[in-house]
Amino acid sequence: MGSARIAGVGLTRFGSHPERTGRELFARAAAEAMEDAGVPRSDVETLNYGNYMGSIAENQGHQAPLMAEAAGVSCPATRYEEACASAGVAVREAVRAVRAGDVDVAIAGGMERMSHLETDAVTAGLATAADDLLEVKAGMTFPGAYALMARSYFETYGGTRRDLAHIASKNHENAVPNEYAQYRNRVSVDRALESPTVASPLHLFDACPITDGASAVVFVSERYADSEDVDAPVAVTGSGQGTDRMVLADREFLARTPAATRAAESAYGEAGIGPEDVDVAEVHDCFTIAEVLAIESLGFAPNGEGIAAAREGLTTADGDLPVNLSGGLKAKGHPVGATGGSQIVEVTRLLRGDHPNAEHVPDADVGVAHNAGGSVASAVVHVLEVVA
Amino acid sequence: MGSARIAGVGLTRFGSHPERTGRELFARAAAEAMEDAGVPRSDVETLNYGNYMGSIAENQGHQAPLMAEAAGVSCPATRYEEACASAGVAVREAVRAVRAGDVDVAIAGGMERMSHLETDAVTAGLATAADDLLEVKAGMTFPGAYALMARSYFETYGGTRRDLAHIASKNHENAVPNEYAQYRNRVSVDRALESPTVASPLHLFDACPITDGASAVVFVSERYADSEDVDAPVAVTGSGQGTDRMVLADREFLARTPAATRAAESAYGEAGIGPEDVDVAEVHDCFTIAEVLAIESLGFAPNGEGIAAAREGLTTADGDLPVNLSGGLKAKGHPVGATGGSQIVEVTRLLRGDHPNAEHVPDADVGVAHNAGGSVASAVVHVLEVVA
Repeated sequence: MGSARIAGVGLTRFGSHPERTGRELFARAAAEAMEDAGVPRSDVETLNYGNYMGSIAENQGHQAPLMAEAAGVSCPATRYEEACASAGVAVREAVRAVRAGDVDVAIAGGMERMSHLETDAVTAGLATAADDLLEVKAGMTFPGAYALMARSYFETYGGTRRDLAHIASKNHENAVPNEYAQYRNRVSVDRALESPTVASPLHLFDACPITDGASAVVFVSERYADSEDVDAPVAVTGSGQGTDRMVLADREFLARTPAATRAAESAYGEAGIGPEDVDVAEVHDCFTIAEVLAIESLGFAPNGEGIAAAREGLTTADGDLPVNLSGGLKAKGHPVGATGGSQIVEVTRLLRGDHPNAEHVPDADVGVAHNAGGSVASAVVHVLEVVA
Repeated sequence: MGSARIAGVGLTRFGSHPERTGRELFARAAAEAMEDAGVPRSDVETLNYGNYMGSIAENQGHQAPLMAEAAGVSCPATRYEEACASAGVAVREAVRAVRAGDVDVAIAGGMERMSHLETDAVTAGLATAADDLLEVKAGMTFPGAYALMARSYFETYGGTRRDLAHIASKNHENAVPNEYAQYRNRVSVDRALESPTVASPLHLFDACPITDGASAVVFVSERYADSEDVDAPVAVTGSGQGTDRMVLADREFLARTPAATRAAESAYGEAGIGPEDVDVAEVHDCFTIAEVLAIESLGFAPNGEGIAAAREGLTTADGDLPVNLSGGLKAKGHPVGATGGSQIVEVTRLLRGDHPNAEHVPDADVGVAHNAGGSVASAVVHVLEVVA
């Protein structure tokens, strides 16, 4: 099976854009990606678009045709929704379509706009990604869900709030040079520890912010890259997706995320690599504990040992395996339906060497992106490699 | 490229199921499809699920993992949203995954639940499939949109409300023997004409009802069908998708649906057939005028001549090309996110000969399904053929 080459990537600045419509945000990301790719819009054969809660936040469903128009393309366009992994599945299907030879050029990405809503409305909107009958009606929201996962982890393996604060501090440090990031301020471990409680043991600085933004990636087939002389040095060589029980109470063990483990195994298998081959990773740190569970599911640390990774320096910018050099969801921000695409953008730039933090991984040629939905009832993992 | 064989199909009865949850509805359709297929659940490798407005109607997004659980499968599961064509794109991606060799067994379908809401809330929910900024805020809802399309058609080509009433009457007649249909009562042309105005020139009996329901289709690869000795006599041999400008005011001509024309051309091209080869069709008659536009876009009648098809008998049960032998959206019902899957179910049964209306098409071996989103800003067309 051929690989899907990445010809261009684009983002909006992540943050608060209450004055801009969703289609303006996606148009900007798509335009940046098309400009980066240098591919004519008339060659684009499919648009795969991720969005989570536009029908709630903007009274707008059926966004795919609108976004095709915003991107200036007239091909088939489809919206994917998988909670916070919406753009991850959109990317995955674009990769599959290119590899299968169905299309030569695809755009995939996503958009979310939430900052114009009251915080309570955002929390309620995001909570629709949990089970309404069995969790939400009982009062569950995502800070609570991840707090339960953190408690289970602490009780099973040990670990402290200070360990989690190291993750927050690391990701804020990484965001400082990232012009697309929502928060480019440093946060010390002590400041993170002192932030107010959200859902014990998680505090404010354990959580990602409310973010507007968009992402776009242009994929091309090997055939197209060769025949059109497109500069596309990075390829997606592996893609995996996993699903788990939605309801936390139905899971065997709250301190693991098997959907992500399955997605990683599939992605590694396709790429013919293992976790030991990975040089850099973007993972779905919607809460600091989620980064711990992610790096364990990806095989970067044994179960129970991911908690110490940031503190011990494994995953810091100068560590053996830098994680979330973008700043992660924690500091770069988390426009839900765009996040899976933005991770691909960040890893691509790190591998191409045109990322502001690329200096930390000068020899990187294998990267991983890990995107999760809800309390990881769904997960998508992609392997990216330098191939040209 | 191999074809995707249809091993099993399932539906709930369409209608009003306020006492049943969405997951119960989908579980039932999926169970019927799996039973029909005779394939073990452990062999299912992907679940592609269509839903339009669950986050509004049931406060439930991220439905794909829930539906995987309801269907008793533990594979990757993805939700597709393309307004009323949500299940159409879910089916299309399942077909592509099977044909590409990515998976051997896939379930695709969808679910919608709306009847527990007030009619105003349903109308407002459905209106999120139009452009919120440029149409909905100006008062546009879908009866109004299709009324404009009907007016444009009448002014350009001629045609009368009586012609449209023939379509309503035909589809109600077809629904009488269909045990899955919401309305199994006959409606005369005169009664349809006398129904109250909804948006002139469209009256109540020009419109589809508010419906709950679910659909599921089990696809298998040729390799799997052969090696596992699965009875799967019908295959999807062509799949096409088209996109158009969302806003009616931006279109050149309101009396045509070019997204459907493009989808049909792609599907026919893949299947290596033309409209003259089609024996039976299910088309997206959310309003009677939509059936006219569909059969013209599918090439069954020249532009301007589709309006007379039902009156002249071309598309009636005993005509040369029966359309909507299921009863169509008009009488069988339109559970938005399930409809594209249910059309595949109906065409499959007509081609296999186990449909209550199969006697009208005893020699049929080519069928078409046409699923549209919103005012046909998106459209999906599938060609099904008897191959074994």
